[in-house]
Amino acid sequence: MAASINVKIDIALIHYPVIGKQGEIIGSAITNLDLHDIARTSRTYGIGTYYIVTPYAEQQELVREIMDHWQTGHGSRANPARREAFSLVKLASSLDDILVETKKKYGVQPHIVTTSAHKQAEEIDYSAARIKMADTERTLLIFGTAHGLAPEILERADYALPAITGTTEYNHLSVRAAVAIVCDRLLNRM
Amino acid sequence: MAASINVKIDIALIHYPVIGKQGEIIGSAITNLDLHDIARTSRTYGIGTYYIVTPYAEQQELVREIMDHWQTGHGSRANPARREAFSLVKLASSLDDILVETKKKYGVQPHIVTTSAHKQAEEIDYSAARIKMADTERTLLIFGTAHGLAPEILERADYALPAITGTTEYNHLSVRAAVAIVCDRLLNRM
Repeated sequence: MAASINVKIDIALIHYPVIGKQGEIIGSAITNLDLHDIARTSRTYGIGTYYIVTPYAEQQELVREIMDHWQTGHGSRANPARREAFSLVKLASSLDDILVETKKKYGVQPHIVTTSAHKQAEEIDYSAARIKMADTERTLLIFGTAHGLAPEILERADYALPAITGTTEYNHLSVRAAVAIVCDRLLNRM
Repeated sequence: MAASINVKIDIALIHYPVIGKQGEIIGSAITNLDLHDIARTSRTYGIGTYYIVTPYAEQQELVREIMDHWQTGHGSRANPARREAFSLVKLASSLDDILVETKKKYGVQPHIVTTSAHKQAEEIDYSAARIKMADTERTLLIFGTAHGLAPEILERADYALPAITGTTEYNHLSVRAAVAIVCDRLLNRM
């Protein structure tokens, strides 16, 4: 049962459009460990595809170099477990590109689910989200880099997950930690 | 209630002695993002001190440089949230050093709790661990780098936490993701 839930979820890590330090819309740079850590977490929790989203040609080239190294190059032979994680990684130029690809691959429009360190409209709690995802053919779980997803992405959510609060008011987790915690809350079988 | 639990836990990230690729005992290199990500997670979940454990002088010097930058240098002014996370970070040469310091600071020997990607002796589940930690004056939660903690560390555990299983048999999470998930399982107030 639980195994059938998890293969229905994809993850997108957005580098544009996201919020910058001054609240402006920016494009953020690729971080190597975002590819590694989130691919490993995705593989652990049975995520379908992990999309790295950036519209910039040079940044796409960098992503391709890293992917090549771990999917088919030297890294893939030196570290098969890492190759397995990287087999989920795909490059996309935009959220719309992912929607087109999902439609083509599965014949459906996925539910768009956003995450944020701040209160969002249309939030539902993690246990409700677990149930909803189990009943949904395909769900795209979206995470932002820099200071979070731009309003134009947040506005497209079918629903949103609540910000992760630990036991303090501090809400500056790394996106790598946030993805790990969200996957565990939604998909663990403890 | 919950708030009183979390301040009683410290975290140690061990760089020696850990397991290498061939199963041998090695010392691993410091990874910059281990300091950042785990400090941010620690601050979010109300951890007391986050110890970076390495006996090597050059590696200790590197840790000090990173700490200085974010605790008192340029980084601390440019990013106060990061300074706040780094205020928990401390350098230690060994597990025994931490025990001496804990004894001096709190007058107690902490419970030693180990983590591993593999089955350990003396495992108790996460809900039992939550209760145990609430009843314990001080708990030291230990994570390994490279291929995990050496037997000589594992053997010193008062008890161990089960390996994190997602929804697949893949057990190659990054230590940054593992710490985030373990903190959330032990300390979240969802």
